[in-house]
Amino acid sequence: MTPPTASRVGSDARGPERPPDSTTATLAVIVMGSPADRDHAGAIADALRGFHIDVVQRVGSAHRTPEHVLAILRDHDADPRPKVFITVAGRSNALSGFTDPQVAAPVIACPPPGPEIDAWSSLRMPPGVGPAVILEPVNAALFAAKVLGAHDPQVARAVAAFQAAQRDRVTTADDTLQVAQGTRDEGSP
Amino acid sequence: MTPPTASRVGSDARGPERPPDSTTATLAVIVMGSPADRDHAGAIADALRGFHIDVVQRVGSAHRTPEHVLAILRDHDADPRPKVFITVAGRSNALSGFTDPQVAAPVIACPPPGPEIDAWSSLRMPPGVGPAVILEPVNAALFAAKVLGAHDPQVARAVAAFQAAQRDRVTTADDTLQVAQGTRDEGSP
Amino acid sequence: MTPPTASRVGSDARGPERPPDSTTATLAVIVMGSPADRDHAGAIADALRGFHIDVVQRVGSAHRTPEHVLAILRDHDADPRPKVFITVAGRSNALSGFTDPQVAAPVIACPPPGPEIDAWSSLRMPPGVGPAVILEPVNAALFAAKVLGAHDPQVARAVAAFQAAQRDRVTTADDTLQVAQGTRDEGSP
Amino acid sequence: MTPPTASRVGSDARGPERPPDSTTATLAVIVMGSPADRDHAGAIADALRGFHIDVVQRVGSAHRTPEHVLAILRDHDADPRPKVFITVAGRSNALSGFTDPQVAAPVIACPPPGPEIDAWSSLRMPPGVGPAVILEPVNAALFAAKVLGAHDPQVARAVAAFQAAQRDRVTTADDTLQVAQGTRDEGSP
Amino acid sequence: MTPPTASRVGSDARGPERPPDSTTATLAVIVMGSPADRDHAGAIADALRGFHIDVVQRVGSAHRTPEHVLAILRDHDADPRPKVFITVAGRSNALSGFTDPQVAAPVIACPPPGPEIDAWSSLRMPPGVGPAVILEPVNAALFAAKVLGAHDPQVARAVAAFQAAQRDRVTTADDTLQVAQGTRDEGSP
Amino acid sequence: MTPPTASRVGSDARGPERPPDSTTATLAVIVMGSPADRDHAGAIADALRGFHIDVVQRVGSAHRTPEHVLAILRDHDADPRPKVFITVAGRSNALSGFTDPQVAAPVIACPPPGPEIDAWSSLRMPPGVGPAVILEPVNAALFAAKVLGAHDPQVARAVAAFQAAQRDRVTTADDTLQVAQGTRDEGSP
Amino acid sequence: MTPPTASRVGSDARGPERPPDSTTATLAVIVMGSPADRDHAGAIADALRGFHIDVVQRVGSAHRTPEHVLAILRDHDADPRPKVFITVAGRSNALSGFTDPQVAAPVIACPPPGPEIDAWSSLRMPPGVGPAVILEPVNAALFAAKVLGAHDPQVARAVAAFQAAQRDRVTTADDTLQVAQGTRDEGSP
Amino acid sequence: MTPPTASRVGSDARGPERPPDSTTATLAVIVMGSPADRDHAGAIADALRGFHIDVVQRVGSAHRTPEHVLAILRDHDADPRPKVFITVAGRSNALSGFTDPQVAAPVIACPPPGPEIDAWSSLRMPPGVGPAVILEPVNAALFAAKVLGAHDPQVARAVAAFQAAQRDRVTTADDTLQVAQGTRDEGSP
Repeated sequence: MTPPTASRVGSDARGPERPPDSTTATLAVIVMGSPADRDHAGAIADALRGFHIDVVQRVGSAHRTPEHVLAILRDHDADPRPKVFITVAGRSNALSGFTDPQVAAPVIACPPPGPEIDAWSSLRMPPGVGPAVILEPVNAALFAAKVLGAHDPQVARAVAAFQAAQRDRVTTADDTLQVAQGTRDEGSP
Repeated sequence: MTPPTASRVGSDARGPERPPDSTTATLAVIVMGSPADRDHAGAIADALRGFHIDVVQRVGSAHRTPEHVLAILRDHDADPRPKVFITVAGRSNALSGFTDPQVAAPVIACPPPGPEIDAWSSLRMPPGVGPAVILEPVNAALFAAKVLGAHDPQVARAVAAFQAAQRDRVTTADDTLQVAQGTRDEGSP
Repeated sequence: MTPPTASRVGSDARGPERPPDSTTATLAVIVMGSPADRDHAGAIADALRGFHIDVVQRVGSAHRTPEHVLAILRDHDADPRPKVFITVAGRSNALSGFTDPQVAAPVIACPPPGPEIDAWSSLRMPPGVGPAVILEPVNAALFAAKVLGAHDPQVARAVAAFQAAQRDRVTTADDTLQVAQGTRDEGSP
Repeated sequence: MTPPTASRVGSDARGPERPPDSTTATLAVIVMGSPADRDHAGAIADALRGFHIDVVQRVGSAHRTPEHVLAILRDHDADPRPKVFITVAGRSNALSGFTDPQVAAPVIACPPPGPEIDAWSSLRMPPGVGPAVILEPVNAALFAAKVLGAHDPQVARAVAAFQAAQRDRVTTADDTLQVAQGTRDEGSP
Repeated sequence: MTPPTASRVGSDARGPERPPDSTTATLAVIVMGSPADRDHAGAIADALRGFHIDVVQRVGSAHRTPEHVLAILRDHDADPRPKVFITVAGRSNALSGFTDPQVAAPVIACPPPGPEIDAWSSLRMPPGVGPAVILEPVNAALFAAKVLGAHDPQVARAVAAFQAAQRDRVTTADDTLQVAQGTRDEGSP
Repeated sequence: MTPPTASRVGSDARGPERPPDSTTATLAVIVMGSPADRDHAGAIADALRGFHIDVVQRVGSAHRTPEHVLAILRDHDADPRPKVFITVAGRSNALSGFTDPQVAAPVIACPPPGPEIDAWSSLRMPPGVGPAVILEPVNAALFAAKVLGAHDPQVARAVAAFQAAQRDRVTTADDTLQVAQGTRDEGSP
Repeated sequence: MTPPTASRVGSDARGPERPPDSTTATLAVIVMGSPADRDHAGAIADALRGFHIDVVQRVGSAHRTPEHVLAILRDHDADPRPKVFITVAGRSNALSGFTDPQVAAPVIACPPPGPEIDAWSSLRMPPGVGPAVILEPVNAALFAAKVLGAHDPQVARAVAAFQAAQRDRVTTADDTLQVAQGTRDEGSP
Repeated sequence: MTPPTASRVGSDARGPERPPDSTTATLAVIVMGSPADRDHAGAIADALRGFHIDVVQRVGSAHRTPEHVLAILRDHDADPRPKVFITVAGRSNALSGFTDPQVAAPVIACPPPGPEIDAWSSLRMPPGVGPAVILEPVNAALFAAKVLGAHDPQVARAVAAFQAAQRDRVTTADDTLQVAQGTRDEGSP
């Protein structure tokens, strides 16, 4: 990775930016339980695209429209590309546990922000129902990129660049602080 | 109701006993999410039968077998009798919120005992998904009997007798204690 | 159900609107513990009326005016129509458990929003005291409508229409999103 | 107080013992919500008697038998002696908030041991409903004795002796430990 | 009590107002742990004065100035009037448990509002250390007034008037609502 | 998958058994923070092998031996097979967040059972540090198998068989219950 | 310490001010996990300097840059002055437990403000990993000053002056309040 | 440190053993709030002695015997040796916050095991009251040893040996596991 990488990741909370002309070999299907979750789902989608992953977003409720969700899952299971599902459902999260046993691909539950007690409905799964839980949108995208990076070197490189940029942010901040407090000369290693 | 009623309700935690030859005009469908929940479901079923309500118990997982659960719900929705559904699912309770929008009858969520945090997955429902939550098996059966008692006088009488017996338990205990501590003569009103 | 149904339910959080000239065959009695709970009680009442249920709202405190509450309960228990009680009390909810053993009709506890710990005073009922707990006003009304819909086809039809509208909201949002992201042509099924 | 006092309080969790021939000028009325609470109520009663306070125990449920509780409260409110009420109710504590506005005397809520969440139903009272909460039986009795000690010097002396004995327990334990570890000679002050 | 009483208690959260020329026979000593608690202490003091109780407010920290607190307690313990101590300390509440064993009078802990976890440092007292916990300032004052009302009829009358006014608030609100929704004629009983 | 599959998964909590002569094309590296976690790690390892995944278990503490953990991670990152890391650390889980930024492969945090508060140290990760959290050992293995099944058809088939067996367990239990309660004839579909 | 000291501590939340020309014999190394924690770290640093302790602030992440943190720790461990480390990391606090076993000096964890659950990741350390937890910045600095005051009389004097000023704040507030409410004459002791 | 060191620390939960003839230059004063805390205090004392620190244990209650605690603190503050105080008090921890402002030495709060909510009474200290909280006895002793190791090389060496032994436990367990699973030859580095 070249130096520009670090500057591409300007904020702690976003993934790397995605060149506009990328083509992608892998797929992330985001299923949100309600149109009210669209901002949280959108943040995940933006970060996924930064890792060069194709994204499809769908709306389906395990409570209200389970057969519609099953149709969504079947549609995208048929896509031959390596893929992950990312489920976005707040309050009592039925969608993630509903999705996991219906598909072959891994399911990442990334519930929207809410009271702390909500997280338990994502975590307390019975044996045999195994979605993985991640709270931050960018982290859900990063995890998906690690899974899919084993199938697409472009994704793997974006992960490596993102991880390097994260490290650079910390060490650069340390350098800046050292100079500011006079414990290190500017420009010294 | 005759005096024997009070003695029929020997324990605080069970509903009234059911005469063996009763015929019932109403139905409660218990859907449990796993065969592991059978004892809790059985306690609800026993209490329901004590209120002269017919009971069917089914096993179906909203996580693993949603289409099977939909078939169960359609089967029993076709039964012309007035009815309630009682859903029994621990950990993250997807079953109750999954069942409610699929049926015309009211859905009572009665999750099996577990850590306190589990209750929130039964309570935190989005607007339009409205199962009611009750923690004690006998209370879930009592609530069902109140709903169905408006359709069957036999059930309504069992509810009234049960409520009277509950009151008698308290006042009898008070009388006994008064006699024991000498603040009331035995036999005085 | 006709197409206008979906448009009648404009918001996720309200029940269906009620035609102004409806006559109702069923009753919901809302008892609030304090005049401070009037907005929450009003939201429940509005949703109930949308389901063609007659509503009476009363103020009575199980803490301060228990005999007044008993008089309220006796008044409305004498109404021959099928009915439910909906109790609205925040902080330590004594009203719901106080009401349930005094009436033949089912009691739905719908406490006003507050800290999460308050919910436990609605849930932790001893055996024989069985109010059902629902947190969202529209869900409490929906549950009441399911109970009363078994007595009045007009209510049952409103429930079915509301459930259908809820499903339509989800699938319509999915369609809109599909068109927006180019994964489906506008107008395709 | 004479040295025997310290030995009279053998355990940290019990109040002082009560001489068998005491006559008392003050009254504590314990109302328990269920006969299941009798052990916890009994522990409070024993400690109260140790402070030379007359004790009446009653059983009455604010949920199931509110009119019976009102009769209990009226009965004992008529007793001319200075008094306190101590309410013992687990799970959702309606009894304490129900009792307080009905009586002139102070009400002490001493709920039986249970999950931590239960305490909140005793604490979260609306303005104008003011029972005081104490978790330990001996502490509820001690508090009652402080209130009633202002009316009966015998009670006040028992409180003072109990407090002195509590202090002695600590300093004696420190002395014993000092001798054991050799940082103080046996018998030195 | 005369009709003006009800109107004197205009708000749910304040105690009754106090005539300016009252003389008082009883005393409440408020000890706050920090000058930062003065508003909460002031709310308690205002309500106490409304019940015709003399109030002294002091600042003393069990953490920082224990000997100063002991001097405060000794000062006011010498006052011959019947009295209560009210301790006001947030975060980790050492002051209430520190005060109780040092004085003969009852100690009411009324911690200022804060995170829910703070309440446990007021509640979890070892045997022999028995402050009573009340969260609302007006309720702490009401409880104090019940304790001191046994010594001063003027205080007892203010308690009775306050309780009556609280009841009137509820039934008046019910009447108003009945008239507004047409279920009762204006002026009917 | 052949019919014997269902019977191979006898318990809800274990993954499918693994034929003794399997060769595997994928790798799961389990890093446990302390030898005290070996039983939990062993349960994950057994389930992974049942899915035909090669397993290496290592012990390394992010607290005590961070350089040793870094060496472990570098060792296994060099293995060319597709892989996942599974981190097992209780109490404050530093290991999972420590591991994730150091490796290209996805990291699954599967903390051993403990108080509920411990889970938050696995979940509350800063942006850019993205381990996924799964609580049940068999679910962590199932998730790993979904990720690695995209690289090895043998693993994918084991996942499909396991999911089918999980569904069969539910429907078989429902059939058995139907027969037992007489709502279905034995042998009917 | 001279009287001006008390006035130097104007606010409850800051340590004493530091004369600009002080030289220091002791060192506190603050390691923050992210540049986002700089305000919290800065508050600790300001308080430390007020106690005449030299401060170095560094940025290093146990998650992202463990080797950089190890280098930071080695750098400052070589400083011959008596010292403490203060670790500042929010969410899941890996930094504090990572730092403690790598250094000979004591480690004080002072996590930035956040949800209450975060504190547990600082507290729940395995045996042999022993950072101490303090929540308030000024208290972390005070604790450090007590440790380092045993090596530098200037620091010890600043601690004593700060403690005296804290006591003065309380007793002065009490005096002011006494005068204001007329229970003490202005100027009386 | 010589190889025997590792074997001396046989258990994760104990500090190093102490040679019987050691003389110590530093002091730890353990103050426990009740004789009921003696086992927890004893575990801390044993670990401290293993680090060659002299230990005095005292019993004193900030609630019941504050003046006795002040006398204890003054006694030991006069000891010229470098020292720490370790406070042991369960439930509502007043002792730690009471001790800290009275002494020049650092105060370590090590509350005995109890419900999780108790920890908050140790953590939630106001500004200017700064005990540090550590939950494990051996960790409290280790922290004390780091503080006192700056004054006594024998203590510093014991800390270094203990830390090395802790590291050895982890890497030895890893070696053993590697050999057992055949991923490393016995005896290879």
